[in-house]
Amino acid sequence: MAPTTYFLLVSFLALVTSQAIASDPSSLQDFYVADIHSLDMHVSGFVSKDPMAVNADDFFKAANLDKPRDTMKSKVGSNVMLPGLNTLGISLARIDYAPLGQNSPHTHPRATEILIVLEGALYVGFVTSNIDNGNKLFAKVLNKGDMFVFPQGLIHYQYNPIPDKTPAVAIAALSSQNPGAITIANIVFGSKPSISYDVLAKAF
Amino acid sequence: MAPTTYFLLVSFLALVTSQAIASDPSSLQDFYVADIHSLDMHVSGFVSKDPMAVNADDFFKAANLDKPRDTMKSKVGSNVMLPGLNTLGISLARIDYAPLGQNSPHTHPRATEILIVLEGALYVGFVTSNIDNGNKLFAKVLNKGDMFVFPQGLIHYQYNPIPDKTPAVAIAALSSQNPGAITIANIVFGSKPSISYDVLAKAF
Amino acid sequence: MAPTTYFLLVSFLALVTSQAIASDPSSLQDFYVADIHSLDMHVSGFVSKDPMAVNADDFFKAANLDKPRDTMKSKVGSNVMLPGLNTLGISLARIDYAPLGQNSPHTHPRATEILIVLEGALYVGFVTSNIDNGNKLFAKVLNKGDMFVFPQGLIHYQYNPIPDKTPAVAIAALSSQNPGAITIANIVFGSKPSISYDVLAKAF
Amino acid sequence: MAPTTYFLLVSFLALVTSQAIASDPSSLQDFYVADIHSLDMHVSGFVSKDPMAVNADDFFKAANLDKPRDTMKSKVGSNVMLPGLNTLGISLARIDYAPLGQNSPHTHPRATEILIVLEGALYVGFVTSNIDNGNKLFAKVLNKGDMFVFPQGLIHYQYNPIPDKTPAVAIAALSSQNPGAITIANIVFGSKPSISYDVLAKAF
Amino acid sequence: MAPTTYFLLVSFLALVTSQAIASDPSSLQDFYVADIHSLDMHVSGFVSKDPMAVNADDFFKAANLDKPRDTMKSKVGSNVMLPGLNTLGISLARIDYAPLGQNSPHTHPRATEILIVLEGALYVGFVTSNIDNGNKLFAKVLNKGDMFVFPQGLIHYQYNPIPDKTPAVAIAALSSQNPGAITIANIVFGSKPSISYDVLAKAF
Amino acid sequence: MAPTTYFLLVSFLALVTSQAIASDPSSLQDFYVADIHSLDMHVSGFVSKDPMAVNADDFFKAANLDKPRDTMKSKVGSNVMLPGLNTLGISLARIDYAPLGQNSPHTHPRATEILIVLEGALYVGFVTSNIDNGNKLFAKVLNKGDMFVFPQGLIHYQYNPIPDKTPAVAIAALSSQNPGAITIANIVFGSKPSISYDVLAKAF
Repeated sequence: MAPTTYFLLVSFLALVTSQAIASDPSSLQDFYVADIHSLDMHVSGFVSKDPMAVNADDFFKAANLDKPRDTMKSKVGSNVMLPGLNTLGISLARIDYAPLGQNSPHTHPRATEILIVLEGALYVGFVTSNIDNGNKLFAKVLNKGDMFVFPQGLIHYQYNPIPDKTPAVAIAALSSQNPGAITIANIVFGSKPSISYDVLAKAF
Repeated sequence: MAPTTYFLLVSFLALVTSQAIASDPSSLQDFYVADIHSLDMHVSGFVSKDPMAVNADDFFKAANLDKPRDTMKSKVGSNVMLPGLNTLGISLARIDYAPLGQNSPHTHPRATEILIVLEGALYVGFVTSNIDNGNKLFAKVLNKGDMFVFPQGLIHYQYNPIPDKTPAVAIAALSSQNPGAITIANIVFGSKPSISYDVLAKAF
Repeated sequence: MAPTTYFLLVSFLALVTSQAIASDPSSLQDFYVADIHSLDMHVSGFVSKDPMAVNADDFFKAANLDKPRDTMKSKVGSNVMLPGLNTLGISLARIDYAPLGQNSPHTHPRATEILIVLEGALYVGFVTSNIDNGNKLFAKVLNKGDMFVFPQGLIHYQYNPIPDKTPAVAIAALSSQNPGAITIANIVFGSKPSISYDVLAKAF
Repeated sequence: MAPTTYFLLVSFLALVTSQAIASDPSSLQDFYVADIHSLDMHVSGFVSKDPMAVNADDFFKAANLDKPRDTMKSKVGSNVMLPGLNTLGISLARIDYAPLGQNSPHTHPRATEILIVLEGALYVGFVTSNIDNGNKLFAKVLNKGDMFVFPQGLIHYQYNPIPDKTPAVAIAALSSQNPGAITIANIVFGSKPSISYDVLAKAF
Repeated sequence: MAPTTYFLLVSFLALVTSQAIASDPSSLQDFYVADIHSLDMHVSGFVSKDPMAVNADDFFKAANLDKPRDTMKSKVGSNVMLPGLNTLGISLARIDYAPLGQNSPHTHPRATEILIVLEGALYVGFVTSNIDNGNKLFAKVLNKGDMFVFPQGLIHYQYNPIPDKTPAVAIAALSSQNPGAITIANIVFGSKPSISYDVLAKAF
Repeated sequence: MAPTTYFLLVSFLALVTSQAIASDPSSLQDFYVADIHSLDMHVSGFVSKDPMAVNADDFFKAANLDKPRDTMKSKVGSNVMLPGLNTLGISLARIDYAPLGQNSPHTHPRATEILIVLEGALYVGFVTSNIDNGNKLFAKVLNKGDMFVFPQGLIHYQYNPIPDKTPAVAIAALSSQNPGAITIANIVFGSKPSISYDVLAKAF
């Protein structure tokens, strides 16, 4: 895979936790701040912080957009938690793309994504499902400030088409607190263990 | 692709219609039978039949399981409608697999699937997403009467591993009236137009 | 009640557990496998297994469709668990009917049902509610391979009309992980304690 | 059936309309007032009034609680519309019970009910489903001002136990704009056409 | 604030508890009675009572409508629990208004409200949002037995316009087990700490 | 009100349309592109475009972030449509704040908001509801790249505290395709017609 620089800025779940969350319904309280330190419980939904201990920092995250970054290197998937998003049905991600880097074809099984380009340019696209319009590709070049929608569950990608030293930066909003990500190449050719050769040979 | 024989028996939407359906919520009436002849409207949800004209056949479908079939040939995606399923949040599919045939890696963006083997045997599997357990393959050989669950949105496949003249038959129940299907190979390598070579070369 | 042979094959909840599950929303993770051994907790949702301990068998169930069964006897309600279905909004049941046996009038308060006949024949029907079409009966004889839909919450039944030694077998898919079942005769005439005679005498 | 006086005061759907409504989700607008005069359309959801024509009376209903009524007679099911409730997921009903009158065993397939007694007394109860606690009856005598909850889909009843000329009046709030009602006796013994004798004889 | 007498009769959550509830979805069981004594847990949803210990009183509440009350005084917000409402998506409140008392402008972030006047008269109204019809006031005088709907999230009020010793009483049904209440004056001018003067000065 | 510069960049509904949309459920198709020219229909949900006529521009919007703007002036509420967002449960807004300008206290009745500062600085806050923690203010100063969450339905504000010529720019993602906005000052003191003086005098 090429030097993709994917940096999830405000996704709710950390890679390292074994927390179990079971649903994305409408809230039943003002908020329900996760107690991210209760890592060894596996109930439906995070254990919450004592409401009396909740404060503004539970709803805050510094993204350091003004800091210089080395976007020539790959920094994939370093999720960061924002406890206050628990049960609120939305999350936000920042993505950095090296020159000619990409966020290769993937799906979010539980969310629609709106992406806005903050710096540089992106060539983006998604493909419709088997039924409904027949595997059509809808693609577009986005410049600074342009936005694009990737409907829930569809395979899509973003690619920084500029070969010189121009990185691209985008913000992606997703309609779930835990949208999930399924990178096609990783799943099909990199699962543990591998999908059997017979299946792959006939499919591809 | 190998001689896959995929035959959707009771899925709600026909390939030929351009009907627009927008949601899969809980029902607001006993039922809401689709008027499948009103093909040129594009509102949110099918136009319904006059309730006085609804009858038992709107909820009925003959699958002819006892009829001999030529399962050596491919019969992909011939969807059949069952109007009474409209808005009820479930659908059923029958799938026929030729010897060494498969339902190649795909996802259903809007449904979990439970599959039960009625004849023959199947080698089945799914792969978890990028987060949560790291692209693990969960695979199993199923014999007649065995069941397996494919969680919503995950890439999965079924393969008839028996090389002689033994076809396999399965019933799949899906948790949406319009689960959708995204066949990975079709999307990635067969979209119209194609995903650009630059993107694919770096991803795969 | 006649020799009804009702055998729920893959329903999620066992009769013996006092587990508390509170909702059937869309999933927030790839899956959320129940820890069915944690029987003495009563939180909203099953306690989950450690994700690292989940394996393919959590999504698998052998139904032994090819095994001979003594379908002359009643086998009512022996639920079997499939932990991997937790939070996924669907379940599957296998039902065996002795000759002239039936699954007597009942409702599923939380699910629509699609039934497919695997062996024998069934006379099936449902009745619409007080409003909307006025307590109409929609009934049909189903043969092997035929399917029928019972919309959520409506009173319905299945009856094996063949008096000789021909049992019937069906698979039923339901649109909830815990659809519930309310057998009318049991509720109205067999509750513990009984509904008062005054109420029943005036109603029936 | 005894002299039951059931008077639905503010339910959304009229018996006479053939309007089709398909879902009870969260609202997407402040309100979505139904155009109850558009009776010959069968789309998913009522046709709405022009928002500029909506006024306070669309959200208002006079119940005339202070008017004397002849509660010795049966007045069953005269539904009244309140257009402003469209899509808002709640409805209200007023029920009048003659002395020894009852609202006989029934279910609401799409709503939980909270009932409050405004005049007289009621003996009320509901029975749990087949699984979970085994067809238990939970019953109670309610006096003026008392409240009781009937969980969604469970069979329940109310009975005015006082034999003299004391009528009872209750308000019932239901958690759906179209909760539906299934009166057990009507369905089982009064459907059109009747459920076959073979099925009923074995069940009851 | 004037002598407002607001008395929530059957709301689910007590002011004193720190229980955490995260969602208002459709039920997955017949009911899920809260164990209101488990105050020091903060999971998603109340800990439930042992189902074997549930009884009719969990679904019952005496409102004492026939008891004389001193409605000249303010009785604001004394919430009372009804454990059986847990997860059932509805709640009920009784509100007492002193002469010239009011339930001042407020919103329920998670529920639509239907109000019915049991005694006296009320002047009620709500205002639409910024988009859709432009901040229109829909107001009405309600007499005994009249009903009115306040759509979810909109700012609304009730006012007892009669200056003599006539109190008013109303029942309000809300479409969530925990509708929440945001009294505008309290929030804007009484938050802890206060919203900064700069913000308020420019807004009002 | 101060020179507030509020510019909704990608909200789904235009101010000028009288379209009726009734729900925000999970999608039943890949997408359901609105036909924004069908302004004179009032069904539940937009009339959709013919799927064959959908193209990439339906999912695209140019925000012109790189264009110089006169942010000293107020530009409030000029909504722009992105037809492809129809039914997808998310929207995005860009907000421009003049020096000392603000987005005064308001609520979104149907959405949680995540805000990220792209330029300048913002002082932001929200206040909790009457129950749960007691009208607490959670406030914070955000710098470039910082993010903050405003839970659904709670009253919140953003204020550009820098008095010189430094405008602020933010992107806000909202968890509904039609989140709605209720500006407190407009509603309470600017409704058409006005809320009666008696009600306001006692409340404030």
